[in-house]
Amino acid sequence: MKPIKVGLIGLGVVGAGTYTVLQRNGEEIRRRAGRAIEISMVAVRNTARAEAIVGAGVEIVTDANLVVNHPDIEIVVELIGGCDTARELVLKAIANGKHVVTANKALLALHGNEIFAAAQEKGVMVAFEAAVAGGIPIIKALREGLTANRIESVAGIINGTTNFILSEMRDKGLDFETVLKQAQALGYAEADPTFDIEGIDAAHKLTIMSAIAFGIPVQFGKAYVEGISKLQAVDIRYAEQLGYRIKLLGITRRAVVNGVEGIELRVHPTLIPTKRLIANVEGAMNAVLVQADAVGASLYYGKGAGAEPTASSVIADLVDITRLATADPGNRVPHLAFQPNQMTDVAILPMDEITTSYYLRVYVKNRLGVMADLTRILADARISIDAVLQKEPAENATRLDIVMLTHQTQEKNINDAIAKIEQLATVVGQVVRIRLESLS
Amino acid sequence: MKPIKVGLIGLGVVGAGTYTVLQRNGEEIRRRAGRAIEISMVAVRNTARAEAIVGAGVEIVTDANLVVNHPDIEIVVELIGGCDTARELVLKAIANGKHVVTANKALLALHGNEIFAAAQEKGVMVAFEAAVAGGIPIIKALREGLTANRIESVAGIINGTTNFILSEMRDKGLDFETVLKQAQALGYAEADPTFDIEGIDAAHKLTIMSAIAFGIPVQFGKAYVEGISKLQAVDIRYAEQLGYRIKLLGITRRAVVNGVEGIELRVHPTLIPTKRLIANVEGAMNAVLVQADAVGASLYYGKGAGAEPTASSVIADLVDITRLATADPGNRVPHLAFQPNQMTDVAILPMDEITTSYYLRVYVKNRLGVMADLTRILADARISIDAVLQKEPAENATRLDIVMLTHQTQEKNINDAIAKIEQLATVVGQVVRIRLESLS
Repeated sequence: MKPIKVGLIGLGVVGAGTYTVLQRNGEEIRRRAGRAIEISMVAVRNTARAEAIVGAGVEIVTDANLVVNHPDIEIVVELIGGCDTARELVLKAIANGKHVVTANKALLALHGNEIFAAAQEKGVMVAFEAAVAGGIPIIKALREGLTANRIESVAGIINGTTNFILSEMRDKGLDFETVLKQAQALGYAEADPTFDIEGIDAAHKLTIMSAIAFGIPVQFGKAYVEGISKLQAVDIRYAEQLGYRIKLLGITRRAVVNGVEGIELRVHPTLIPTKRLIANVEGAMNAVLVQADAVGASLYYGKGAGAEPTASSVIADLVDITRLATADPGNRVPHLAFQPNQMTDVAILPMDEITTSYYLRVYVKNRLGVMADLTRILADARISIDAVLQKEPAENATRLDIVMLTHQTQEKNINDAIAKIEQLATVVGQVVRIRLESLS
Repeated sequence: MKPIKVGLIGLGVVGAGTYTVLQRNGEEIRRRAGRAIEISMVAVRNTARAEAIVGAGVEIVTDANLVVNHPDIEIVVELIGGCDTARELVLKAIANGKHVVTANKALLALHGNEIFAAAQEKGVMVAFEAAVAGGIPIIKALREGLTANRIESVAGIINGTTNFILSEMRDKGLDFETVLKQAQALGYAEADPTFDIEGIDAAHKLTIMSAIAFGIPVQFGKAYVEGISKLQAVDIRYAEQLGYRIKLLGITRRAVVNGVEGIELRVHPTLIPTKRLIANVEGAMNAVLVQADAVGASLYYGKGAGAEPTASSVIADLVDITRLATADPGNRVPHLAFQPNQMTDVAILPMDEITTSYYLRVYVKNRLGVMADLTRILADARISIDAVLQKEPAENATRLDIVMLTHQTQEKNINDAIAKIEQLATVVGQVVRIRLESLS
């Protein structure tokens, strides 16, 4: 059988990794796929750099339209990132009857519904294993491995940059700004780190997993997104003393509020019991914990970024497509796990309505009755306290931290209580509130 | 589209779990698969019990041949275990053009080559996600998720019974026999626990993963199999003090011996650094760690046994088959990951030729020069010592333990050295030797 021809748009880190791995393991991949996979054309801005990377058999162009329009190319791999141009090119490729592989989580989180509908209409595949958790085959696990299950929740460390920063902050007791600078120097964080540190990248990935887990459209706009840039070293330390680690977690979960089903979709720093496996995922590694009714808990761990780990997922998609390219669309796996006409419209819950536990740190004046005031406010709000940490203040200290872990309550309830606490004359500044998940 | 009809052979724990999950999540599964999956017939020995489990729409028979011969049944699920009858029924089902799902690792480890060849010939699928690591979709990950990679090694905790026993031994400082009895009382170990505790079950599963990872035939007969029944509590304790946990690990790995490629295939108790994620997999849980050239390390964790976790994998296979039943065989994933005409005959290495590190415990008389004798023998054999643990002996103690961790060496080399050590007049009894893997 003749090789299947692939056109690559973008030859950055992941593009070059994809080319390299296909070259190195081409023979092994062919033995699996039953057919060789050949990158026949790449579209890049800098042709000189491209020439240094790809061999003579690959046509190098600067106009990506030449790739999406080329009659011999059956699969277009979009690796330029960003939304506008990428969306246009992907839709053109689909319109031309080409299958698409993309690692572009922003594109799918924002325009996935449009793109998958177009692909469905045209009978082509859009594959995106590389868009979530790099080399971990989590899309395949959720979409094919767990088809028997009613999935209850997905919770993941799905941004390596923030996990690296949090690991370093804990390990070395450093503050956020210092570690961020180190991460930038090491290449773990970008010059403009906003997408990573503010949780946006994680929310893109979580949005995609949420759709696959629950059979809902991608709804990035409804995700709650909170990053780690305001996290203080002192809270990491207190958490540790209480038996918890703080991770930037993407969480999506079924919930019932006032008898109505809804779905939580949220990214934020989260306390996790240290004894959980996922709490011990350190450095730039990723992990996704899935709770489902038949299988129970399962966890998927690996490298969430980098040239070859991401290329591993891009190429796995190429192999899947190579196998199914000649099959009837009905033989293929639906893009979002559920058949397109079998999606549901269960609503994403507003953040006020989610239920979780909380870590609260209150900075108070060292006066009689402070604790009584705090606990009274929580009791009035029917919020149970699970643990309290109050160190004996230094002699003559006039202010001190009181740390409390609460049982589960609704977010709007804790917010009301916090507002009341902040009005106390004995409380200084704002209450620090970090969500806590037991993940049991 | 009409439901796809499934015949179930065996309605034990996994069979009943499969029926239950298909009933409970049938609607959700149909929304994913695009077609309902219906168990229309079950073959059992005890029809009364079966009637209590399955609904009125399911025909109950005692002759499994009625299932494999039934013209309406497209998929036969074999869940009776054992090899002889199961092999016969599976081959008959294949000959009748039916797809097969099985959770039977012994069957595939021993007769997989014959069964897959028959299925290939007939153009049907034999799916077996449930045969390895219960609910963890590890077959799918290895076979489809990591297709880009040259897989270097697979190391797994793939037997829940032994992991439960080892966890309890470590946690409570109890000896093997005591914990085994507890495990039997709790239902974690069978009345005859041989298959589990002697490593045979793990070796069956490892044999299957080895074939998929490296593109070789299943070769159970060449696996090295050593269980945990001789493991002593004292070694678990010493290992802990040195920063290691002892796990029953199934390990399969590429190796080069004297310039020739070979594959290690071995199950035995293994010291693993406590800081590794897989060392912290406790109780009856399973986990598989894969090392591959592009993706690096990835880990898959979940329940390795039980009614619904195993059913989760059985049903995932049913969904896969339902999707691909009408596709051309060329569109399907090869049974053992590689195209049948693209397997290799790289040999399984005899145990003497594998290379690893070792934990040695030598029980010695408390005399001058003992340590010098031991270290001289190891130095002569060019075995480097990585760590030594020798506690100050109790006053007047005449005997004591010396524990050593070695660097990597070949198994025959350490065995020769151990033989020499055991000949020393100062050494009492046999040297305890446990293999050690750093898994870095």
